[in-house]
Amino acid sequence: MSDIDRTRAEQLCREAGLDALVLFQPEAFRYAVGAPAGVATMWGRAGAAIALVPADRGAKIAAVASDHAAGAIRKISPAIDLRTHRVWIDSADLTGAETVAQVNEAYRRSGAGGSRPETFDRTRCFELLADLLTERGLAKARIGADLEFMPAADFDALKQAIPGIDWVDGSPLLRRLRMVKTGAEIERLRRAALAAEAGLVRLAAAVRPGVSLSALSAAWKDGALSFAAGNGFSLSGHWDFISVGPDLSDMSAVVEPGALIKADVGTLVDGYSSDGARSFVYGSPSPLAADVFKALENAFAAGLGNLRPGNGFASVHAAMLASMRRDGFSEYYRGHFGHSVGGGVGIEEWPFFSATSTETLEPGMVVALEAPFYGQGFGALMIEDQFLITETGAECMTTLPRNLRDLSV
Amino acid sequence: MSDIDRTRAEQLCREAGLDALVLFQPEAFRYAVGAPAGVATMWGRAGAAIALVPADRGAKIAAVASDHAAGAIRKISPAIDLRTHRVWIDSADLTGAETVAQVNEAYRRSGAGGSRPETFDRTRCFELLADLLTERGLAKARIGADLEFMPAADFDALKQAIPGIDWVDGSPLLRRLRMVKTGAEIERLRRAALAAEAGLVRLAAAVRPGVSLSALSAAWKDGALSFAAGNGFSLSGHWDFISVGPDLSDMSAVVEPGALIKADVGTLVDGYSSDGARSFVYGSPSPLAADVFKALENAFAAGLGNLRPGNGFASVHAAMLASMRRDGFSEYYRGHFGHSVGGGVGIEEWPFFSATSTETLEPGMVVALEAPFYGQGFGALMIEDQFLITETGAECMTTLPRNLRDLSV
Repeated sequence: MSDIDRTRAEQLCREAGLDALVLFQPEAFRYAVGAPAGVATMWGRAGAAIALVPADRGAKIAAVASDHAAGAIRKISPAIDLRTHRVWIDSADLTGAETVAQVNEAYRRSGAGGSRPETFDRTRCFELLADLLTERGLAKARIGADLEFMPAADFDALKQAIPGIDWVDGSPLLRRLRMVKTGAEIERLRRAALAAEAGLVRLAAAVRPGVSLSALSAAWKDGALSFAAGNGFSLSGHWDFISVGPDLSDMSAVVEPGALIKADVGTLVDGYSSDGARSFVYGSPSPLAADVFKALENAFAAGLGNLRPGNGFASVHAAMLASMRRDGFSEYYRGHFGHSVGGGVGIEEWPFFSATSTETLEPGMVVALEAPFYGQGFGALMIEDQFLITETGAECMTTLPRNLRDLSV
Repeated sequence: MSDIDRTRAEQLCREAGLDALVLFQPEAFRYAVGAPAGVATMWGRAGAAIALVPADRGAKIAAVASDHAAGAIRKISPAIDLRTHRVWIDSADLTGAETVAQVNEAYRRSGAGGSRPETFDRTRCFELLADLLTERGLAKARIGADLEFMPAADFDALKQAIPGIDWVDGSPLLRRLRMVKTGAEIERLRRAALAAEAGLVRLAAAVRPGVSLSALSAAWKDGALSFAAGNGFSLSGHWDFISVGPDLSDMSAVVEPGALIKADVGTLVDGYSSDGARSFVYGSPSPLAADVFKALENAFAAGLGNLRPGNGFASVHAAMLASMRRDGFSEYYRGHFGHSVGGGVGIEEWPFFSATSTETLEPGMVVALEAPFYGQGFGALMIEDQFLITETGAECMTTLPRNLRDLSV
């Protein structure tokens, strides 16, 4: 099922003077169509998977996808008006076939046989899109395409293939549409955050002198995967940025007494990535590490105090930076103290808690608030949590305490 | 160190009438610069990392990268002419600092402190590129940019920011440059293939009735990671497409007697992905499965017989398809029977063993030859191996036999 709030999409399209969105990025396709874009998108080119979202909320979402991806799309999102193109992979339904002759017959019956392109046929994909636009009365429309993704070479070809359209960059509208989540998106982000938290618990339990960074990474991943499996869901991905000790570039570091451990981690559920971080130490932190962490705790609390609907993203940045200044850090600066999270490309989604943001917190947003500190020769410390913005404030999606835990006790 | 053969690059640029290549895709940056493009590229936008490769092979390669990525680039590729821009992450060398005042002093001394952009400042990145082009006498040059990557929105901004340049699509030239590998690239692909093969050995050992697809995937990964660790290298990634039994979409399938198991897998070493596949069965395959596999073996052998310098990629496709026809498969078709492998985006690189390819095999290419068969209700079978094209033929990069192994014996 599509994750698009069609009412909100219609309103944003009307405001932008757009008749439709046409989306080429695999992550945007998945958002609009509710099913994976398929393997033909692996080269980062545009055309193999296309979603058409008419501004009119009563008009069906349509898609162009490969015959290889079509089965999954029809199963997951039967309401989509789907047109297919042939890719390099052939496959037929051979249920019951026992001989080569029956295999041939199954291919013939299904239309699976016959010539196929080297990879995918972009010209054919754009023809299918042109057909859809004509059928929907959009052949002369003003359409927003995701030009922050679409390769310039493919955009040139698209403009030539479908010349009647007034193409504009729909990426800013898409970002704005995605920044408020549906219930299903929130559930994915909640599951992802809980799996990542379970991984952090497992990581903390594995910390002792001599344990390597890669062993901590493995423990984290095991904890996250076990949690997901135990709760009946699977992870579509995971990532971790773990540092151990004072050398931030040392991927072969091992835990030593007093060394700082920072774990900034996330898991993905159906392409939606969580983001969170905790800091640990085995033994007592140095007086400077304790001072830094206290300042991060104060900054985080200052940011959290501003995390409610109606507040600007910039106010959160200002509050956190002011807190660091109050605690004596006169030079420390961050371009952002967190960001939206979701199913887009990259871990961090717009809007950001930055000094220049003009965006405002709204109910239904899911954001990660972060207070990090990196020092070569010192180590890294970080507090980060994921929050759902509610009607009245912010609900934390995890439960672990945010202190600098001494794991030797 | 850069992986670019500058003599070959100069020749290709001269033929294409280009004065330089300017590359924005993270994978292309890594190829040109020899070091990772950095985290500021996570959004798929252009500008955070840029490589300038002058056609003149005597002129230094230059790069624009974030201050966050600069340390690693300077360490790995000291010969690069590097210009840096500030991103959202602040970090300073705090070696020896014991107080907050000393932290502030270290920030001041290093220039790390002060305002930073929300993410990265594309305008600043393009300014640094413009400076480089002017310094190199390329301010009015004809330059190939990788427009098969560069987002249309960013390309518009680039053309406005640096208006004197005649920008053309350099992606086809980049593809052609990358298709012949250096010794270092071949070594990465060799290691990656051997790690993946070790994973397949571990997978085969884990097969028995009741074992799940995900357990086989885990066994594969463990085998690959252990091999890499035991041989002193690390994997930058891994992927697997494993099918178990007749339902190709059933990710929760378990091994049953007679069920087909297909493992199409790869590992990455410094971003270079191997590609290979083996097929297994626990017990006897059905007569049809045996017939299909025999045809795949014949097709693979026919393709392998054509795998030598001077032969066309299309001749390999023709030989393999003709073999399938001889064995009675009148409708079976593949858009390609394999492809180049390397460090680009996606697992499969151009050129492809397709009917329409006009490319010719050359020494120094590394290719994956594949004979796959997919049938819903039947299962999947596949033979795939990775080969280095030598002066006289093709050298297989792995050692496992290619038969359909019955793992019950």
